[in-house]
Amino acid sequence: MNGEGQIYVLSGPPGAGKSTIAARVRADMPDLAYSVSLTTRAPRPGEKDGVDYHFVSREEFQKRIAAGEMAEHEEIFGNLYGTSEKMVRQVLEQGQDLFLDTDVNGAESLRKRFADGVFIFLVPPSPTELERRLRGRGTEDEDQLAQRLGRVKYELSKAFNATYLVVNDDLDRAVAQVEAIIIAGRCRTSRHLKLLDEFQDT
Amino acid sequence: MNGEGQIYVLSGPPGAGKSTIAARVRADMPDLAYSVSLTTRAPRPGEKDGVDYHFVSREEFQKRIAAGEMAEHEEIFGNLYGTSEKMVRQVLEQGQDLFLDTDVNGAESLRKRFADGVFIFLVPPSPTELERRLRGRGTEDEDQLAQRLGRVKYELSKAFNATYLVVNDDLDRAVAQVEAIIIAGRCRTSRHLKLLDEFQDT
Repeated sequence: MNGEGQIYVLSGPPGAGKSTIAARVRADMPDLAYSVSLTTRAPRPGEKDGVDYHFVSREEFQKRIAAGEMAEHEEIFGNLYGTSEKMVRQVLEQGQDLFLDTDVNGAESLRKRFADGVFIFLVPPSPTELERRLRGRGTEDEDQLAQRLGRVKYELSKAFNATYLVVNDDLDRAVAQVEAIIIAGRCRTSRHLKLLDEFQDT
Repeated sequence: MNGEGQIYVLSGPPGAGKSTIAARVRADMPDLAYSVSLTTRAPRPGEKDGVDYHFVSREEFQKRIAAGEMAEHEEIFGNLYGTSEKMVRQVLEQGQDLFLDTDVNGAESLRKRFADGVFIFLVPPSPTELERRLRGRGTEDEDQLAQRLGRVKYELSKAFNATYLVVNDDLDRAVAQVEAIIIAGRCRTSRHLKLLDEFQDT
C-alpha cells in the first residue's frame, strides 16, 4: 500500500437504505476508519465527546463553516451536523481508508474537496418502488408527497456525479457490492506504486 | 444495465498465476463471457473448432493480422494464438461482460483498442518471491535466469498502465480481489444511465 488512505463516501436519497448498509459494511470491514462528526446537538445520556460526536457550540460550528473547515454539514431539526476536512485528512495521511455515509448534498461538498475519492450512490430499484417506499411512511398528504418526490428526484439527479451506483433491491447484494467497490478501490494501481518501484529497483 | 458489456483483462508476467486465477473466476462467475481464441496450432484429440479454438491456417491468421483484425496475438512454440477484435466487439454489443486472460503484450494491445476496459495486472508478492518462483522451476542456468528476470522486470513495468493491481500472495484472496473488481466494474455509474434517466422521466 502507498502512504495515503482512500476516502469512500456512501450517499443517496432518504429511504435508499444508507445507514443500514453503512452499519453492515462497518461491521464486516472493521479496518475502515470513520470520522467522528461535529454536532451542536446536546449529548444524549451515555454519549462521549470525541467518540460519538465532537460536541461543539453553535458559535464554534459556524466559525468553522466560515473558516472553510467543514467538508460538509447539514442542519437537522435545528441542530448542525458535519465533517471536518482537517480530521478527514489526518486519518487519510495516517494511511487509513475512511468510510463515510452522508446525504446527497454532503457527498457533493466532499466531492469538491476530495476529488480522487470513491463516491458510491445508493438508489431504490425503480421509480415505482421509490414512490411506494415514500407512500409507505403514510404520514404525508398528496401535496407533501409530491414535494418530497420532487426533492428525491433532484437528489437522484446528482447520482450522475458518483463513481459507482448501487441499486438497493436486495440488502445482502447491495452490501456485497459496496464491499466489492471498497476492495477494488484498494487494488487501484495508484495505491501500489511503491511495490511496483521495488520490482524495478532490484 | 446499459447496452454495452464491459471487457475485463487479466494479465501479468509468467508465474504470477494468471491461468489458475482466471479458471477460478470463470467457475465462480459463469455469466462472464469469453472470446474463443484463434490459433494456427493443429486441433488436439477432442478439441472442437469454434469451441476450444477457431483453428485457422497460418496464412489466414497472418491475413487477419495484416488487416488489423487481431486485438492481440502472440507466437508460442511456432504457433500463433490471438483474439479477434471483431469477435470481442460482438460479445460486448450483445451486452455481455467479457473476461480475458492474456500475457502482458496482449494486454497492452487490448488497451489500445478497448480504452474503457478494466485492466487487472497480477504480480508476485515481492521481488524476492519472484526470483524464488523463477528459480523454483530449476530448468535454467544463471544466464538464462538473469535474462528471464530482466524480461519479467520489463513486463512488470507495464503494470503502471493497468487500472488495478492484484498481488498474488494468497490465491483465495487474489481470486476474491479479481471478482470484487468485476463486481465494482458492473456498478460503475456509466453502466446505469438508463435507470437514472427513468427516475428523471417520471
